Amino acid sequence: MATAWRELVRDKRARQVESIPKEWLIDCPAEAVLDVTKIPKQCGLFTAKELEITGTTDAALLLSKLASGEWSSVEVTTAFYKRAIVAHQLVNCLTEIFVERALARAAELDAHLKSTGKVVGPLHGLPISLKDQLPLKGLETTMGYVSWIGKFAERNAVVVDILYDLGAVPFVRTNVPQTLMWAETYNNVFGRTLNPHNRSLTSGGSSGGEGALVGMRGSPLGIGSDIGGSIRIPSVFNGLYGLRPSYGRVPYAHAVNSMEGQDSILSVLGPLSSSLSGVKIFMKSIAENRPWLRDPLARRKKWDDEEYALVEHGGGKNLCFGIIWNDGQVVPHPPVIRALEMTKAALIAAGHKGAADDYRAVTSSTGEPIINSMEIVDEENGVVKNTFLPPMPASAYHLWQFQKERRDLRQEYLEYWNSTVEQTGTGRPVDAIIAPCAPYTAVPHGKNNNAAYTAVWNALDYPACVFPVTRVDPVLDAPRPRHDFIDDTDKAIHELYKPETFVNAPVGLQLVGRCQEEEAVIAMTEVVDAALKEAKAKIAKL
Amino acid sequence: MATAWRELVRDKRARQVESIPKEWLIDCPAEAVLDVTKIPKQCGLFTAKELEITGTTDAALLLSKLASGEWSSVEVTTAFYKRAIVAHQLVNCLTEIFVERALARAAELDAHLKSTGKVVGPLHGLPISLKDQLPLKGLETTMGYVSWIGKFAERNAVVVDILYDLGAVPFVRTNVPQTLMWAETYNNVFGRTLNPHNRSLTSGGSSGGEGALVGMRGSPLGIGSDIGGSIRIPSVFNGLYGLRPSYGRVPYAHAVNSMEGQDSILSVLGPLSSSLSGVKIFMKSIAENRPWLRDPLARRKKWDDEEYALVEHGGGKNLCFGIIWNDGQVVPHPPVIRALEMTKAALIAAGHKGAADDYRAVTSSTGEPIINSMEIVDEENGVVKNTFLPPMPASAYHLWQFQKERRDLRQEYLEYWNSTVEQTGTGRPVDAIIAPCAPYTAVPHGKNNNAAYTAVWNALDYPACVFPVTRVDPVLDAPRPRHDFIDDTDKAIHELYKPETFVNAPVGLQLVGRCQEEEAVIAMTEVVDAALKEAKAKIAKL
Repeated sequence: MATAWRELVRDKRARQVESIPKEWLIDCPAEAVLDVTKIPKQCGLFTAKELEITGTTDAALLLSKLASGEWSSVEVTTAFYKRAIVAHQLVNCLTEIFVERALARAAELDAHLKSTGKVVGPLHGLPISLKDQLPLKGLETTMGYVSWIGKFAERNAVVVDILYDLGAVPFVRTNVPQTLMWAETYNNVFGRTLNPHNRSLTSGGSSGGEGALVGMRGSPLGIGSDIGGSIRIPSVFNGLYGLRPSYGRVPYAHAVNSMEGQDSILSVLGPLSSSLSGVKIFMKSIAENRPWLRDPLARRKKWDDEEYALVEHGGGKNLCFGIIWNDGQVVPHPPVIRALEMTKAALIAAGHKGAADDYRAVTSSTGEPIINSMEIVDEENGVVKNTFLPPMPASAYHLWQFQKERRDLRQEYLEYWNSTVEQTGTGRPVDAIIAPCAPYTAVPHGKNNNAAYTAVWNALDYPACVFPVTRVDPVLDAPRPRHDFIDDTDKAIHELYKPETFVNAPVGLQLVGRCQEEEAVIAMTEVVDAALKEAKAKIAKL
Repeated sequence: MATAWRELVRDKRARQVESIPKEWLIDCPAEAVLDVTKIPKQCGLFTAKELEITGTTDAALLLSKLASGEWSSVEVTTAFYKRAIVAHQLVNCLTEIFVERALARAAELDAHLKSTGKVVGPLHGLPISLKDQLPLKGLETTMGYVSWIGKFAERNAVVVDILYDLGAVPFVRTNVPQTLMWAETYNNVFGRTLNPHNRSLTSGGSSGGEGALVGMRGSPLGIGSDIGGSIRIPSVFNGLYGLRPSYGRVPYAHAVNSMEGQDSILSVLGPLSSSLSGVKIFMKSIAENRPWLRDPLARRKKWDDEEYALVEHGGGKNLCFGIIWNDGQVVPHPPVIRALEMTKAALIAAGHKGAADDYRAVTSSTGEPIINSMEIVDEENGVVKNTFLPPMPASAYHLWQFQKERRDLRQEYLEYWNSTVEQTGTGRPVDAIIAPCAPYTAVPHGKNNNAAYTAVWNALDYPACVFPVTRVDPVLDAPRPRHDFIDDTDKAIHELYKPETFVNAPVGLQLVGRCQEEEAVIAMTEVVDAALKEAKAKIAKL
């Protein structure tokens, strides 16, 4: 029995290899080749059109070409499938591979468009990748557990049913860490997923298969889950956009999960994408499908165009952001600080001047209170500080005490947020917060052990959208000597930083809004993203 | 120390007596006088105008007269305050009495309207009563606990802040049972609240002070809370309208409560009123005030006029209701069955014929599955069946198992609801459910121990609106002999019914809709209410 699991793994892996079309195998580069993002272009497997399709990072553009029939779904699905398989050979990001099924679906969609002249839905023809928590009827769902090998799903997750309604083509499932409760991606069934920008670094987790796959442009849009950062960490480590929505905006029903029944801090589903348009279209389409009629925990909140138009945020003019430079526990690495500086400068340049003066006030005058007021600590009851996980106290009574504390914390933070109206000069409290997603970029395998920058927003249930900013640059991001440290963790993380270790690692940030304000968070991330692009274009011109 | 609490109670009660204006004291009838609802008219304390004001059961009409200045807020507040004090002398429904403060507020509102020509908000000038869980700054909040005597609130509950914003006049607080976890109203501080329609019967609970007060027309609109029926039971026992909204639609922040941190089944706040317009105006005004900006657990869901227009329910034409005749555990008393029959007949007469045929099918063909599929039972973990309270298992792990079961139950019931589309013939699943609120009308004191008919909707988080139907009629509601009983509880409740015990007791029902669908539930209750009024008018003409 002790070795039986190895047999199961061997069989499962053999079946995975068989599921890969032989003609999509490539000669893989040596392990020492770290950045593999250019391999698809170089390997000779792809036609020019396939490279054009998979190089189209804007999901909205892909969808418009699919809707007009300029590109068929079979073409688009084939192109991304090939690229996903190539990505898998390079960074080990996939779990379930089902090419025939996906292409048959794509062909059906093409036939429908041809015969009716109409799309099936707003995601017509788009291949979408799914974290290994989202069952498709008839396919195995292992979620990285050997004991789940051979468990074939009797029904789709509700979000998968909705994706079919919307016209999408679910086409691969992606790797996760064992138990899901770890911000890297490694399990005994499928092994470890690597970061395509630098394979010596982690892809992050727990939606690390998604992060690596979308980072390789092997999928235009993927669905991950986030209970402490599991969408945002892989998004930022792989240079992507990714949204952690508030509870109940994306239906979770019939997804598999760990720690079921744990309700204190809920895992949520959300998108990772190479474009912000992918994030928006996903959220809008899901809401318009009325998921609350299929999942009792989904919120009855329609997509709100007024909120997306930032009506509650001055129409998006003269926005005021709070910036979290550090959380008072761990000072971020130099590239992350540079990303904050770049973003701040870009926002000022884009005319958010009020913002510039004010968010400085908000952060400096209060001595970094934003995170300081947010510690979820209950020493008495043995609850761990800054835990990535919700704590698991021994008794129901202690759990109630924790939940009461969490509720009070949410109330306190909401009142704190409201109180910033005194400092912004806009007549509104801060419109959003811009913060690191982690104190570092993607780190070497096994070193990602700090999720405080993301987990705090799960505890508060605030939506947070990741956006890419830059890449690690050994010159611009030289180590900044420090002599005082907050504690040993801060010191250890500081010492981890050596520019040569992090070569080419993407650097991003998260924009955090108020609870259930996904529409506004997406719109404000668009504002920030546009400002950053404008600023980069100006620099490029110099 | 053992007797110290009696001293505290004596002092608190003396202070309560002092807070009552002496000129509002009446000669109380003997205890044997059961129906005291006519006393206000008979006692000679009220002017004709005061009787007209307090006899105006329609909150919308009251508000329009207040907004036009036809009636001042001081007049309206004085009239209801007097009647509340008379009610208190008859049924012991009040806790905190603060006449000066309320009249000062009313005078401010009158002055504002006079000087600006504008109302402060949609509840301008309306006196509103509050369950003793809703602190007002500077007032004592005992919630029926002797140990809380002398505890003065440092701030208002958030919903109270909002009521002030909306122009309302919070004017009394009302009695509750000790711990709140009991469906009658009795505690050591204030004693027992009686039912004004028949003082030998309970007012219900836990919002029984509200129920008795509004039942006496001592308040046009009150706020209660409901974790297992605590708004609906007092509403139905006192012949009122009352809504148990879904979680998070009315902000609970800074209310006091028992069992804090218990999140498995959440208590919610909601209105009790002598009119359905009161229920609607309260819910609409609260939503439009954006409570999610003040309470992190409030849902960001605007008042939805489309949902209120029943767009998802065929525009309110040809509605199809499922009727729960009994829950498979306890067969209701004859007056409750008659109320179901009356309502069914009224709906058929109102043209909801499709409904008539179909809800019969929904209920009969499936062998009363509606409640059968809903038992929250976990024998293994020692969780009590049909409990009024969420269970309190020993360990957090067991709590998680319970929560997982509750989640699965919600999913199962949602899918069951969706499946009724096969039987309704409307192309939609059943639009709503009509069900008893309890297996009986108000019962003698100490006999109200069955909350299964209400608690099930708390477990599912479905909104449920109570509406009055009729009164116990010894002729029409003769005992119906039964020989087979489901179990001893069913038998004991059957044997409790003797028409002479229940003379004059109001009979009502609840209309239950899908989660977070308050707008539609209110609109459909309007449909049912209108049908019943129409049917009664026709009978009256014969």
